[in-house]
Amino acid sequence: MKLKYNWILNGGATSAMGFCAAGVAAGIKDIKKKDMALVVSDCDAVVAAIFTRNAIKAAPVKVSTRHRRGGNIRAVVFNSGNANACTGVQGIKDAMAMTEETAKWLGVRKTQVLVCSTGRIGVYLPMNKVMGGIKELAAKLSHHGGRSAAKAIMTSDTYPKECALHFELEGKNAVIGGMAKGAGMIHPSMATMLCLLTTDLAIEPSAFQNSLRKAADSSFNRISVDGDTSTNDTVLALANGLVRNSPLNEKHPEYWKFEQALADVMRHLARMIVEDGEGSRRVVDFHVQGAATEHDARLFAEAISRSPLVKASWAGGDPNWGRIISTLGASGVKVREEMVDIYYNGLSAVKGGVASSTPRRLLRREASKKSFSITVNLHLGKGTSEMWIADLTEDYVSINRGE
Amino acid sequence: MKLKYNWILNGGATSAMGFCAAGVAAGIKDIKKKDMALVVSDCDAVVAAIFTRNAIKAAPVKVSTRHRRGGNIRAVVFNSGNANACTGVQGIKDAMAMTEETAKWLGVRKTQVLVCSTGRIGVYLPMNKVMGGIKELAAKLSHHGGRSAAKAIMTSDTYPKECALHFELEGKNAVIGGMAKGAGMIHPSMATMLCLLTTDLAIEPSAFQNSLRKAADSSFNRISVDGDTSTNDTVLALANGLVRNSPLNEKHPEYWKFEQALADVMRHLARMIVEDGEGSRRVVDFHVQGAATEHDARLFAEAISRSPLVKASWAGGDPNWGRIISTLGASGVKVREEMVDIYYNGLSAVKGGVASSTPRRLLRREASKKSFSITVNLHLGKGTSEMWIADLTEDYVSINRGE
Repeated sequence: MKLKYNWILNGGATSAMGFCAAGVAAGIKDIKKKDMALVVSDCDAVVAAIFTRNAIKAAPVKVSTRHRRGGNIRAVVFNSGNANACTGVQGIKDAMAMTEETAKWLGVRKTQVLVCSTGRIGVYLPMNKVMGGIKELAAKLSHHGGRSAAKAIMTSDTYPKECALHFELEGKNAVIGGMAKGAGMIHPSMATMLCLLTTDLAIEPSAFQNSLRKAADSSFNRISVDGDTSTNDTVLALANGLVRNSPLNEKHPEYWKFEQALADVMRHLARMIVEDGEGSRRVVDFHVQGAATEHDARLFAEAISRSPLVKASWAGGDPNWGRIISTLGASGVKVREEMVDIYYNGLSAVKGGVASSTPRRLLRREASKKSFSITVNLHLGKGTSEMWIADLTEDYVSINRGE
Repeated sequence: MKLKYNWILNGGATSAMGFCAAGVAAGIKDIKKKDMALVVSDCDAVVAAIFTRNAIKAAPVKVSTRHRRGGNIRAVVFNSGNANACTGVQGIKDAMAMTEETAKWLGVRKTQVLVCSTGRIGVYLPMNKVMGGIKELAAKLSHHGGRSAAKAIMTSDTYPKECALHFELEGKNAVIGGMAKGAGMIHPSMATMLCLLTTDLAIEPSAFQNSLRKAADSSFNRISVDGDTSTNDTVLALANGLVRNSPLNEKHPEYWKFEQALADVMRHLARMIVEDGEGSRRVVDFHVQGAATEHDARLFAEAISRSPLVKASWAGGDPNWGRIISTLGASGVKVREEMVDIYYNGLSAVKGGVASSTPRRLLRREASKKSFSITVNLHLGKGTSEMWIADLTEDYVSINRGE
C-alpha cells in the first residue's frame, strides 16, 4: 500500500510535538557562523541509532554509543567545525563533558544526552567555548528552533537540510521530521553525515531500530559524493510518544505507514545531501539491472561511485559510456561484454556491448541535464541496485585542497 | 648483489641491438599528432606479456593474447586516439587486419605481429587511415626511431616516456630499454597503460615471463593516478638474443642481473607515468609498515590511492593526516587507533593515534614539496606496502570532463 502523507512547509527536527531546539555560534569555527546545536524532547524518548562503520570512531560516537544503551533519551547536543576524532582520552573526556553540561542545564541525567561532532579531525575541542555554547543553547531552546539547529550543524553544506511530513495513524495526526548535514565524505555506510530524526509517535525500541536500518538502506546507504566514510557518521532517531498511539511494532496494523514515512523523510534528506555534495553540479541516478547477483549489482554501482574518470565525465555532461563499461569490467563482477546494454534517461547508448545507433548529440542532451539516470542491464540474472551519485568537479578539488 | 649499470642518454625502445621503430600521424586523432607506431626486431624475438585484468578486454588485447602464444614475435604495431574496445566482432576484424597489413609490409607471418591500441572506447577504427599509417610506418623504420614511436603512443601524456640502460653479462654488453604511455586510468593491475620493453639478450620464455611479472609488481603495479583499470593495459617485452649469450633462465649465474635491470627500467618508466599523471602536480611515496598482514598493508595503500579527499589535500600541500587515518579506519584493515604513527618525510605527525608535538608549519613545509613520503606504521605486524600515488587536482577533472 502507498501511504498518504503531506510534507510540512519548512518542517524539520521540531515539527513533531514536544521537540524544541536551538543553534548558536559558540566560536568553534574561525568565522562567525553557527557551530553548536541542541535538540531536546519534552519527555523521555525511545532512541534508534546507526553509527559509522569506520574502525576509527570519533569520541562523540563512542560516548553516544554508550549512552543510547540506557534508552530514555532527552537531548542531542551537536557541534560543527571540529570532529573530536583522533583526540585520545582527552577527546572522550570532552565529549562526556558536553553531555554532562547539557544534562545539567536541562535537569536530566547525563546518560540521557547524546553527542555528535563534525569537522576537522585531530584537533582538541576548545572546551571553554563549547561550555559557553551549551549554556546559550539551553537558554535559546524553542519549539520553532529546528531551522536554527539545522544551520548550526552545517560544515561545507551550502544550505541547511531539513524536512518533515505528517500522516494519520490510529486516526491521530503523526509527524516525522529531521535534519541532516552532508557535503564531503559521503558514501554508502554513510559519511561525515549527521542526521537526527524526530517523531511524536510511540514505538517499541527494537521495531524503531529495525525500521531505521531498513530506511537507511534505501536512503543514506545509496548516496555517494566521494566514496569516503568518516569517523563521525551518525543517524539518530528519537520517538517521544506524545501522539499517544499504541506503541508501534511489527505486528501493529499501521506499522507499514511508519516505515514508509520514515524512509521517505530519510530519502528526502539523503537526496538533499547528494545534490549539495561538495562541488557537485549533477546527480546521476545509477541503476544496475540483470546482474548475476544482488551483491554483484551493488559492487558494480559502488565501483562507479568510486571512479573519478566516470564522475569527471558527468561534470562535463559527456555521455562517455566507455568509461562505465571499463569500470564494469574492472569491478570484478560477472559480465558478458556482448550482452551489456546501457541507457541514458531511457535512451539506448549501448546495445549488446557496442554503440547503439542513437545519435551522440541526443545522448549528450540527456547527459547535460542537471540530473539524469543511467541504467546498465547485464542480462545475467535478477540482481539490481540503485545509487544516487554526485559528479566530480574542479570545485570538489578546490574545496578539499585545504588551506 | 647490486647490479652496476649505466643509463643510456636518450635511450628507448631501439637502444638494444636489432630493434627499429617509427611513429607517424595517420589521422586517427583529430589533431595532426602522431598516432601510430611500429617497433620491429630484425630477427625472431622471445616474448613476455602482461595484459589487463579488466573483464572487458579490447580487441587488440584479445588478438595479441592469441598471437603471443606462437612465440617468435617480430613486431608490435600501436595506435593511439582509439582504444578499439567495445567494438564487437568488427573490432576483432580490425585488430587482425592491423597485424596482417603489418606482416605483409615486413614479410613475416601475421601471428608474429602483436597489436596495441589506446584512446577512446566504443568507436570503430578508421581502417583506411590505419592501413595508410602502417604502410608509412614500414617505410620509415629506423634503428633510431625509438623516440618517434614513444611520441606516437601518447594520449594525454605531456611528454614521451622512454629509457634504456646497459650492463655487462657474460662479458658482453647487454641493453634493456623501453617506452610507455600512461596519463589517466593508472592504477595497480595496470592502466590505460602501454609499455614495450626490448632487449638484445637471449632468454628462455618462461624465465622471461616470470621476470616480467616480478618486475611489474615493483613498478607498474605500485603506481596509482586515479584508481581506474582500463580495457587495454598491456606490457610487452621482446628479447631478440643478438647479444648471443647463453639463454638466460633461473639457473643462469647472471640471471639476477637481468632481473634487476628489467625491474629498474620498468620502475623508471612507472615513475614517469605517475609523475605525468593527468593533472598531477605531486607524487606521494606512500609507505605502510607494521600492518597485521601483507594483504592488509596493500589494502590500506590502495584505499588511500582511491580517496579523493586524501588526494585533494595533497594537491593543496595540506598535511591533513586526519583524512589518512579516517581512510585507514574505513579500509577494513585491522587497526588499533592508539597505536598508529604517521610521518611526513620522516617527521612525526601522529604518535599513538593523536597529533604529535611537531609544529604544523613544519609538516606543511614537507607536504608542500613536489614529491614527499608519508609513512604509516600500524604496529600490529610485519605487513608492508609501498605505492607511488599522484595527487588529485582541478586539472585532472578539467582534462577528463570530456568535450
